[in-house]
Amino acid sequence: MKKFMNSTATMLPESLTGFAQCNRDIVTLDSEFRFVCRKQVKPGKVALISGGGSGHEPLHTGFVGHGMLDAACPGQVFTSPTPDQMAAAAEAVEAGAGVLFIVKNYAGDVMNFSLAAEMCGYKADTLVVDDDVAVERSAQGAGRRGVAGTLVVEKLLGAAAEEGADLAALKRLGTSVNGVTRSMGVALTSCTVPAVGKPTFDIGDEEMEVGVGIHGEPGRRRVAMMRADEIAGELVQAIVDDLGARAGSDVLLMINGFGATPSLELHLMYDAAARQLGERGLRPSRSLVGNYVTSLDMAGCSVTVTLLNDELTTLWDAPVHTAALRWRM
Amino acid sequence: MKKFMNSTATMLPESLTGFAQCNRDIVTLDSEFRFVCRKQVKPGKVALISGGGSGHEPLHTGFVGHGMLDAACPGQVFTSPTPDQMAAAAEAVEAGAGVLFIVKNYAGDVMNFSLAAEMCGYKADTLVVDDDVAVERSAQGAGRRGVAGTLVVEKLLGAAAEEGADLAALKRLGTSVNGVTRSMGVALTSCTVPAVGKPTFDIGDEEMEVGVGIHGEPGRRRVAMMRADEIAGELVQAIVDDLGARAGSDVLLMINGFGATPSLELHLMYDAAARQLGERGLRPSRSLVGNYVTSLDMAGCSVTVTLLNDELTTLWDAPVHTAALRWRM
Repeated sequence: MKKFMNSTATMLPESLTGFAQCNRDIVTLDSEFRFVCRKQVKPGKVALISGGGSGHEPLHTGFVGHGMLDAACPGQVFTSPTPDQMAAAAEAVEAGAGVLFIVKNYAGDVMNFSLAAEMCGYKADTLVVDDDVAVERSAQGAGRRGVAGTLVVEKLLGAAAEEGADLAALKRLGTSVNGVTRSMGVALTSCTVPAVGKPTFDIGDEEMEVGVGIHGEPGRRRVAMMRADEIAGELVQAIVDDLGARAGSDVLLMINGFGATPSLELHLMYDAAARQLGERGLRPSRSLVGNYVTSLDMAGCSVTVTLLNDELTTLWDAPVHTAALRWRM
Repeated sequence: MKKFMNSTATMLPESLTGFAQCNRDIVTLDSEFRFVCRKQVKPGKVALISGGGSGHEPLHTGFVGHGMLDAACPGQVFTSPTPDQMAAAAEAVEAGAGVLFIVKNYAGDVMNFSLAAEMCGYKADTLVVDDDVAVERSAQGAGRRGVAGTLVVEKLLGAAAEEGADLAALKRLGTSVNGVTRSMGVALTSCTVPAVGKPTFDIGDEEMEVGVGIHGEPGRRRVAMMRADEIAGELVQAIVDDLGARAGSDVLLMINGFGATPSLELHLMYDAAARQLGERGLRPSRSLVGNYVTSLDMAGCSVTVTLLNDELTTLWDAPVHTAALRWRM
């Protein structure tokens, strides 16, 4: 294993220190490394808090800031943060209108965020994201996995919260966004968890894993490497089938890199996926391409599609100012 | 070789099509794939044009837009674009005040951009960037290589051009910025050029290349993998020695990923490099961390330091709106 680190024990705090230092105009890092939060809390705004195991950067710390999250709790690599961390984050950013915890659907995260919501002395609720169409059951919990669609939920709810939506409205909106968002990914290589020191799974020099999870969980099948158009076709078909998308709809198309796939290839996959959507009568009116919900050093990418309407498009376009997503500010 | 592509012949135009499509609010792609240019040319502004071999994305296409480049010419992977491409780009964006070509110091690029400057029917000049302190002679040409510092030159000149600086002033400013900017990188793995199909160089499972170039050129030495603090120490020392930086100076610190190194590690390297600068009395008052000047799928990173003064800091902070760099807009 070759990684830029000093020791597995200090890797996370050192990385968080670097992140907070170079984004010090946007975020503050808790002195005990329990959370990253916005520099300025907005009175009367519902606090949006997310978190999960580290190794998926920029998710979630890179999405803290105006128009997106108020705080993010980083767990150890691929390990849920603790309820204590989440409660401390809530304490730091709750501004009189309650807290909504945005949770990727993994058993540990769901349990810990639910406990945190109970621990809070104010209105608090959880919203679970489960956008991965690859498998019906994740290895770490019941139901679909929450993957790159989490970014979409965080962006749209962030915009609505900034505009003054209350806790109940945000929960409804989040449920609705999750309901029109689907993702599926492929891996060309495994990731390597620093504390483990060897790849999570073996994969041949000519193979790919279709439907892989963002922790390297198995997907639908292991196949010989396919052409980009074939990969895009399989991912888009699975997503569109599951969405039940009507021809003529506008969609948000995100191509998300898992960490080790270059921009050249991600933009090529965008072109391939956009053509696949076009053949099905779907128009990518909004787009995002890059490493947003990663899996450490895994080579691979995922496709996410969200069905848009005017409300969701306006929320997507609303100003956002975070380390990793920034426009109109 | 596993890459997201349909064929090596179509890889570049497909990727450019995807890039232009998802950034269609910012850029236009030439129908013959010769260049990417700003959607709107600003009358009376000096046109800033760069380019080079593809494989370094987002450099240069991702830096086209308000406050940075007017056009970028992508060559084949790791191959200079042609003078014809550059002249066509100039024709598209020249707005009455001449053209400055920003060129990384490789023999082919320097020759072709110089030819293009001669072909232009209007005022045109070239500015060569050679920020890499690793070696005095690149494999592809005389003198130091131009690497990640090119982003700094493009950002600062872009801001000055937007504010109305003329061609001579921009050439002077660019020479001055190049003179206070130094970079050096390390590779943990090789990149693989699609048309070649195998890694550019062999490197052991416990080895790293110190001073590697962004095409996989050899650096200063091949050594056993070091701790992050040791790597940062060696890179920062080489840079600071060469800059002759005085204690007490403000600097811009950029940690640039080569394409396959995750954000978690890049931010850790930021922390390590910032501490190394601090020990030498240098203060990173401005920062940038991410994959900006890449080398296809190479794992590794580079450190870039620019000595700042009030003028350069103001230009860095000025609004920029490109695919890959965006703030205050």
